[in-house]
Amino acid sequence: MKTSIATVTLSGELPDKLEAIAKAGFDGVEIFENDFLAFDGSPSDVGRMARDLGLTITLFQPFRDFEGMPEGLRSRTFDRAERKFDVMQELGTGMVLVCSNVSPAALGGIDRAAADFRELGERAAKRGLKVGYEALAWGRFVNDHRDAWEIVRRADHQNVGLILDSFHSLSRKIDINSIRSIPKDKIFIVQLADAPLIDMDLLYWSRHFRNMPGEGDLPVTAFTEAIASTGYDGYFSLEIFNDQFRGGSTQAIAADGHRSLIYLADQVRRKVETPIGIAMPERAKVKGVGFVEFATSEDEADELIAILQALGFRKAAKHRSKKVSLFEQGEIRILVNVDTAGFANAAYAVHGTSAYALAIAVDDAQDAYNRALALDAEPFRQPVAEGELEFPVIRGVGGGLIYLIDDKSQLGRFSEIDFEVVATDPGTDAADAGLLRIDHIAQTVAYDEMLTWLLFYTSIFDTRKTPMVDIIDPSGVVRSQVVENESGALRLTMNGAENRRTLAGHFIAEKFGSGIQHLAFSTDDIFSTAASLRAKGFRPLHISPNYYDDIEARFGLGEDLTERLKAENILYDRDEHGEYFQLYSRTYGEGFFFEIVERRGYRGYGAANAIFRIAALKKQMRPEGVPKDAGISL
Amino acid sequence: MKTSIATVTLSGELPDKLEAIAKAGFDGVEIFENDFLAFDGSPSDVGRMARDLGLTITLFQPFRDFEGMPEGLRSRTFDRAERKFDVMQELGTGMVLVCSNVSPAALGGIDRAAADFRELGERAAKRGLKVGYEALAWGRFVNDHRDAWEIVRRADHQNVGLILDSFHSLSRKIDINSIRSIPKDKIFIVQLADAPLIDMDLLYWSRHFRNMPGEGDLPVTAFTEAIASTGYDGYFSLEIFNDQFRGGSTQAIAADGHRSLIYLADQVRRKVETPIGIAMPERAKVKGVGFVEFATSEDEADELIAILQALGFRKAAKHRSKKVSLFEQGEIRILVNVDTAGFANAAYAVHGTSAYALAIAVDDAQDAYNRALALDAEPFRQPVAEGELEFPVIRGVGGGLIYLIDDKSQLGRFSEIDFEVVATDPGTDAADAGLLRIDHIAQTVAYDEMLTWLLFYTSIFDTRKTPMVDIIDPSGVVRSQVVENESGALRLTMNGAENRRTLAGHFIAEKFGSGIQHLAFSTDDIFSTAASLRAKGFRPLHISPNYYDDIEARFGLGEDLTERLKAENILYDRDEHGEYFQLYSRTYGEGFFFEIVERRGYRGYGAANAIFRIAALKKQMRPEGVPKDAGISL
Repeated sequence: MKTSIATVTLSGELPDKLEAIAKAGFDGVEIFENDFLAFDGSPSDVGRMARDLGLTITLFQPFRDFEGMPEGLRSRTFDRAERKFDVMQELGTGMVLVCSNVSPAALGGIDRAAADFRELGERAAKRGLKVGYEALAWGRFVNDHRDAWEIVRRADHQNVGLILDSFHSLSRKIDINSIRSIPKDKIFIVQLADAPLIDMDLLYWSRHFRNMPGEGDLPVTAFTEAIASTGYDGYFSLEIFNDQFRGGSTQAIAADGHRSLIYLADQVRRKVETPIGIAMPERAKVKGVGFVEFATSEDEADELIAILQALGFRKAAKHRSKKVSLFEQGEIRILVNVDTAGFANAAYAVHGTSAYALAIAVDDAQDAYNRALALDAEPFRQPVAEGELEFPVIRGVGGGLIYLIDDKSQLGRFSEIDFEVVATDPGTDAADAGLLRIDHIAQTVAYDEMLTWLLFYTSIFDTRKTPMVDIIDPSGVVRSQVVENESGALRLTMNGAENRRTLAGHFIAEKFGSGIQHLAFSTDDIFSTAASLRAKGFRPLHISPNYYDDIEARFGLGEDLTERLKAENILYDRDEHGEYFQLYSRTYGEGFFFEIVERRGYRGYGAANAIFRIAALKKQMRPEGVPKDAGISL
Repeated sequence: MKTSIATVTLSGELPDKLEAIAKAGFDGVEIFENDFLAFDGSPSDVGRMARDLGLTITLFQPFRDFEGMPEGLRSRTFDRAERKFDVMQELGTGMVLVCSNVSPAALGGIDRAAADFRELGERAAKRGLKVGYEALAWGRFVNDHRDAWEIVRRADHQNVGLILDSFHSLSRKIDINSIRSIPKDKIFIVQLADAPLIDMDLLYWSRHFRNMPGEGDLPVTAFTEAIASTGYDGYFSLEIFNDQFRGGSTQAIAADGHRSLIYLADQVRRKVETPIGIAMPERAKVKGVGFVEFATSEDEADELIAILQALGFRKAAKHRSKKVSLFEQGEIRILVNVDTAGFANAAYAVHGTSAYALAIAVDDAQDAYNRALALDAEPFRQPVAEGELEFPVIRGVGGGLIYLIDDKSQLGRFSEIDFEVVATDPGTDAADAGLLRIDHIAQTVAYDEMLTWLLFYTSIFDTRKTPMVDIIDPSGVVRSQVVENESGALRLTMNGAENRRTLAGHFIAEKFGSGIQHLAFSTDDIFSTAASLRAKGFRPLHISPNYYDDIEARFGLGEDLTERLKAENILYDRDEHGEYFQLYSRTYGEGFFFEIVERRGYRGYGAANAIFRIAALKKQMRPEGVPKDAGISL
């Protein structure tokens, strides 16, 4: 796929944008006129900058309110076009985007518009330039690509073609099969944008809410398939208007854009015969979470280990060459790393005690790794001792690590190969608490990184994302969205914090970055687990009695069950599939905590309970030095 | 007006909310159920807290999915209601809000619903409680207050009445005259919310975008007039779901809410006979800006004065008792305060050199002051020397001062009474630059304060607000909205910065708060002013030549005019009323600057030019120590 992106998509000034675009791996760039006008350099300076960075200028855009103007205005419009042709020649770009007229002065009429384009094509041809016509979804007369195509067809000029934009076509729900009959040489360029499904005014939606293909809810893949079926193999260019992107990191947004196109091309090439897309393994099937690893110090490890033991974990093994202990319960493996060298120690130095790494068990770790790299994931390597395993590792949320393991290779046997079994400390309670598996891992990220990580996980792993849910923290709204796979073997809840007074925002601020904020373990008997935890000295999070009065009435629970839930501080929820029980630990450090859940068919994550749990966590943290308005989160 | 507010409107935990509500001056509070459930205290604890603060609990809300349930679910729904009645009695509140059913299980039918309410009314009556029914705009069968009223009418029970909510009625454009025939004793409570006019899904709009009456675009005043015409004199209660409010300052949002109700009541009592509203003077008619005062130090004053002189100002007078100089040109008066005591010095200590005060000339300063205080404005007083004027002063944006002056009293003669004329320094150029008046004053505020200050100005002064405009800063979006009066004597542009990398955000961060970021002066001959400024050594902001190529083509300007604009770095715009010319100074300190404008009939503020001007300001600031990504603003 030949990739391109419009400068309007990114924040920053023109030179920063071009640099970030080149660095992200794009082949081309659309110059958005205002970016050029605000830049204090000549068109040829801009052209040179782009060429020096190896970028083709795919398009100069937009040229507005062109076709169907009444005489008088018409000639001025052509003069204006000639001026832009001058700029384009200096820039060194061959194509201009003309978007459908929105002017109240415009007259309409397919033949009139076609005649205007024929003349513009003639003028462009004299300079070796091309004109692409795009139907805006809110164009005055032309707001459907089928009408734009009819105008281009009637203009019947070699230098006039069609520009298709996924947002304009999909937002109006225009049948995308209408694209399949357009000759590929008349599609001059394709612009792509996705958007979350919110029912609102098209222009407002387009100007503020667009996002990268795969980040939203529009059928951009089907749209691109329709285009690929024509044989089109030109540029696919991102043109995204988004408030977050305008305020975000130039480089990070550019990188997301590139990943979104690579991923899109991969999906399309699996469905239709097309030269777009590069060969890479399929999305990795996830079998489970291999382990979660904490970075900490000898000093701070004691408290963490005490909590793990209170949760029923036992120390099962220690690493052969590093100061890493392995704790186990059911299928759950937790590593505690107190090494004073290596990446874990560096992570500890920056973030304090934190769950900085996780292992994702897939069907083929090497395939997953290759796919991740093809999708611009950042690889990670560090020296490995003789005889120990070298894992394929990529960087994840907050710069933390994602180990890829499988049962195909020796990687799945890491606990035997890299670790040696230790005798159980006779002083500790040998009985576990019935915890079986990791149910889900909650990662807290800055709100403007949410889309980045949703795209990261869903493009590399065979997972889907759930719709976004607003979680009400007493100090603000936290946006929550889940990445999960069909089997439930991988469930990651992503919580995006907009302000630092929320529980999530406080965690990010205090931890100096995004990361794992809580781990949820599953049990198949929440009451027996609760009793066993109580015996081990585990202190659950205290939930307000008012909560229990409400759920008793709301769900029609028996008095008996309600009393048991209340006695154990267990939260309750129900969906059409079944029941859900949640038990929380108190917080540890700057807001890290554990959760224990029992699912009786239930498929959600207890979003309705979040407000009560957050209020309780905040209340509990306060006496331990957190100011009243500082907040804590999901 | 009996005022009330729902706890859901504010951020924070329940005790903080109640305190802020009492402090803002509300008479009552609606307890939003989730706030109560998350609170770790009994219903009677909550009731006591409210009573101790002098607050009546006006409503317990919401009770959902009640009416029209099929048998089986129906009896559970009544059980649920009885449980809530228990809570209400403990809380000490007499009324519950039942909102129209949204459940897929609901059956519909006006008579069925009426029967359900009759039974609920019977049950409530036994406990001395009342039930209010509200039509949600997205209710499954009942989504119109006229239908809800018909149900209440047929329920025909003394303890069952109607709850009207401005958002639910106005968002669906229901004829508000339908309210006038409802008997006042059947309107149990009125909820008020406004919202910006954005065409989107009703539920999404309601949950995220509501705001205080007068802050949005809905005809809330007409709605309230219709209610007042029934003779209703019960509680008017704010129920606002807004993402900004949920993350904002609890006290500031509560204060805004109280002001919005006082202002609303005042507007209504001027139109219909009603006991709601208190007597206060009319909105003040603004005649102009009396002066703008800078707080600075002896050291820093030199640079500021040099700029003023380069702009053609001359020192005209000095204060009789304070170190304050008066600079004049045309009708413009600028005060430079270097006093080492008093509020100006304190403002300088916190914010550095800044335009911390302005005087607004009104028809009657004392009336304006009285109105401002009735609308919860904060008065300001400091000692005044014998024989000098004591101004009515209120606190404005960023804690700065707003002096109120008029020609009725001696206040308008302050420059003679408090100041003495000084001889013009023979070394300075006596000729002015043709600056006539203050065209507008640009205040930069944190985005979440925008609504606060729009309401402040529009409620006290006879002004209107323009629709919000997005200004594209290279580092993010800045929201801009103007407060102006009919004559143009007062024009305040408010720029709300969401991130600190924008020019506006940088200003707030560096100045430690919101404030005046730029002053625009008017001339009636921009070219003659530019020439005269040039002669005085004024250095204009350099604008990219690319800009001029574009406006020449876009507006069809003559080559001659374009060359003159480019030579003088003058920006150009045009609307249906005429032409606009803008000349900018370079920035001073952390982003303060001056603008000179000529209006030839034009009524806007050059929003289309903002992106070019911001890019130029940022570029200019960079060499002077501002990091590339730090940004500067409007």
